[in-house]
Amino acid sequence: MSETARLEAFSDGVFAIAITLLIIEIKVPSHEATEHAGGLIPALIHVWPSYVGYVISFVTLGIMWINHHALCSYIGRVDRYFLFIHVLFLMCIAFLPFPTAVLAEYLPHPEERRAAVAWYSATLVVIALAYNAVWWYAAFGGRLLKPGCDAAAVRTISRRYLIGPVAYGVSLALAFVSVVASLSVHALLAAFFLLPERKGR
Amino acid sequence: MSETARLEAFSDGVFAIAITLLIIEIKVPSHEATEHAGGLIPALIHVWPSYVGYVISFVTLGIMWINHHALCSYIGRVDRYFLFIHVLFLMCIAFLPFPTAVLAEYLPHPEERRAAVAWYSATLVVIALAYNAVWWYAAFGGRLLKPGCDAAAVRTISRRYLIGPVAYGVSLALAFVSVVASLSVHALLAAFFLLPERKGR
Amino acid sequence: MSETARLEAFSDGVFAIAITLLIIEIKVPSHEATEHAGGLIPALIHVWPSYVGYVISFVTLGIMWINHHALCSYIGRVDRYFLFIHVLFLMCIAFLPFPTAVLAEYLPHPEERRAAVAWYSATLVVIALAYNAVWWYAAFGGRLLKPGCDAAAVRTISRRYLIGPVAYGVSLALAFVSVVASLSVHALLAAFFLLPERKGR
Amino acid sequence: MSETARLEAFSDGVFAIAITLLIIEIKVPSHEATEHAGGLIPALIHVWPSYVGYVISFVTLGIMWINHHALCSYIGRVDRYFLFIHVLFLMCIAFLPFPTAVLAEYLPHPEERRAAVAWYSATLVVIALAYNAVWWYAAFGGRLLKPGCDAAAVRTISRRYLIGPVAYGVSLALAFVSVVASLSVHALLAAFFLLPERKGR
Repeated sequence: MSETARLEAFSDGVFAIAITLLIIEIKVPSHEATEHAGGLIPALIHVWPSYVGYVISFVTLGIMWINHHALCSYIGRVDRYFLFIHVLFLMCIAFLPFPTAVLAEYLPHPEERRAAVAWYSATLVVIALAYNAVWWYAAFGGRLLKPGCDAAAVRTISRRYLIGPVAYGVSLALAFVSVVASLSVHALLAAFFLLPERKGR
Repeated sequence: MSETARLEAFSDGVFAIAITLLIIEIKVPSHEATEHAGGLIPALIHVWPSYVGYVISFVTLGIMWINHHALCSYIGRVDRYFLFIHVLFLMCIAFLPFPTAVLAEYLPHPEERRAAVAWYSATLVVIALAYNAVWWYAAFGGRLLKPGCDAAAVRTISRRYLIGPVAYGVSLALAFVSVVASLSVHALLAAFFLLPERKGR
Repeated sequence: MSETARLEAFSDGVFAIAITLLIIEIKVPSHEATEHAGGLIPALIHVWPSYVGYVISFVTLGIMWINHHALCSYIGRVDRYFLFIHVLFLMCIAFLPFPTAVLAEYLPHPEERRAAVAWYSATLVVIALAYNAVWWYAAFGGRLLKPGCDAAAVRTISRRYLIGPVAYGVSLALAFVSVVASLSVHALLAAFFLLPERKGR
Repeated sequence: MSETARLEAFSDGVFAIAITLLIIEIKVPSHEATEHAGGLIPALIHVWPSYVGYVISFVTLGIMWINHHALCSYIGRVDRYFLFIHVLFLMCIAFLPFPTAVLAEYLPHPEERRAAVAWYSATLVVIALAYNAVWWYAAFGGRLLKPGCDAAAVRTISRRYLIGPVAYGVSLALAFVSVVASLSVHALLAAFFLLPERKGR
């Protein structure tokens, strides 16, 4: 296997595991909780913040995986430092189940809700910065890009990726004002990054 | 790696992880439970609903993996929206360990048993709908299908896949009447989807 | 990807996940346990049955993976029933972390130790039977074997694989007599299955 | 798939799962812990030893994966004993989440902190020895190396790999003197093994 293919496969493995591990943070309602809620169905509805966290994180990681896939298609070769920056990026990706679980636990609690959303958004700021670091290391002076890469396309991607940390930063700031507004930024960003990189492709 | 191959590999990863994670929902009987049951062997038999849930979910996901494999053999290319619909489909697949754990926990409790089976069947209705969405997006007007695909075969598959949400819907309705009848529909559906798509192949 | 390659990759995924999940059954000693044992090092030594279970199961699954690998090298094509038998085989493989955790929990308890080892051995009887079912379905009349397969080699493998369920059955019977004797059979079998299939290869 | 490729893929799977499982050892602060700490943000800061353990183990496993990748590029063929030694090596790799969780739990406790770091370092001594065993079995007399391997490069690698068990041994001894000094050796080793094997490559 080529170095690039093996890096792609390893990254896909970490993405697939992190995304699938999200479910183990959703706990089966205890018999006490079920009795308290007045039945199993109300008890299952009662843990809605767990479903919200699951959906937001799954969609965010899923779209990040799709874009990572596009990013890799520009990479022609790798070096040890690129592999290491990639490991740090994956370290941030694999961290996401933790703030997701914090979000699910504290979203229903008015006094801690904002801190939980802020912690979640802060993690995504770091993930977006790590994603940019991966791209910039590869793209700087065309270091690791495939020979025939279109310079204009590379510049477009570079600018586009910078939107990530900025917008997640906005969502972090909004967390202290309005939890709904902050989480809406996450949904909007997911929709934005789902758009193709360029109309012409 | 081609886009199609990487999507297949990622999907297989999520399937493999979700299917293997099913086991961590089966808990070792506590020493109190063992004493209460009169020994370890009776205590291990006592958790039979966990084994029922494990087997049904493993077989269901396994057969879905086999069919997903067949589906992928018709796909010639992918686009971003197909990747995204696929992520949503995988989100439903990766959710299954949760209703399986709910089923295992509440199957022995007469008053909550029906709600647990209904919740489990409802999840499978959603999985089957997501599966159909993946197929319809690809097959509509032959959008992403391989050039030489047999139109009659595509129509047969389309009709066949529609049986999924309908039959799981029946199992959902049956859950409120009879838990055994509802779970039998799951077993029958697994057997049905195991049959080859067409006699002639 | 060919059907055979995708089945191999999926099986390897389930093997890799089941084998790596074994570690999450080893629990960090609580502060009470540490105080009770007179320090963290004694407390870590105190959970030795967890390490025994981890090593036996990891080595058993690892050698099974090596042999599964050799088995696959004889398979020329797959059909839907073979895929399904394979799913059932993987269902047994993925179950092993559960009896391993039971073993670790009950090995230090004289009155339940035999039941725990019996449960563990019984799981391996079922795994070995499923492994034989995979092989026999493929090898019967050469159904799915590669065209040029040496008939003598196939017969040797068939006989060799039958040793699995028989020997694990012996280990199951021995569990009720002596826990050490029963677990020794597991170690001997691992060593036996590590030997190359034929001297001449 | 060739035997070498399948071993690489299986190893990468175990690495990817072990590295991603590290996160499930970080527990969401309970509502009592949050109240005690005076809010969710202080409570999340309070579990800093979990983050320290996560980062050290992720980076260590990540760099080990990068180097394992380089090691595999020298391997031309495999035999059953090499596969088995590899399984034992992966058994050590997959064990790391456990001492990481021990470290996170006991780092804040002055009386047990040293034992936790010693246990962690001892695991890495064993991992480094297993890594050397993999290499030495393959490299001894050029047994499994690719035909054209440069003998000088092989000797350089052999010497370089020996630094691992020695340095982790030093970190183990230092654990009883100073926790900070011991963990610094881990950081230094990570940096050392990140350097390319030879300037000339």
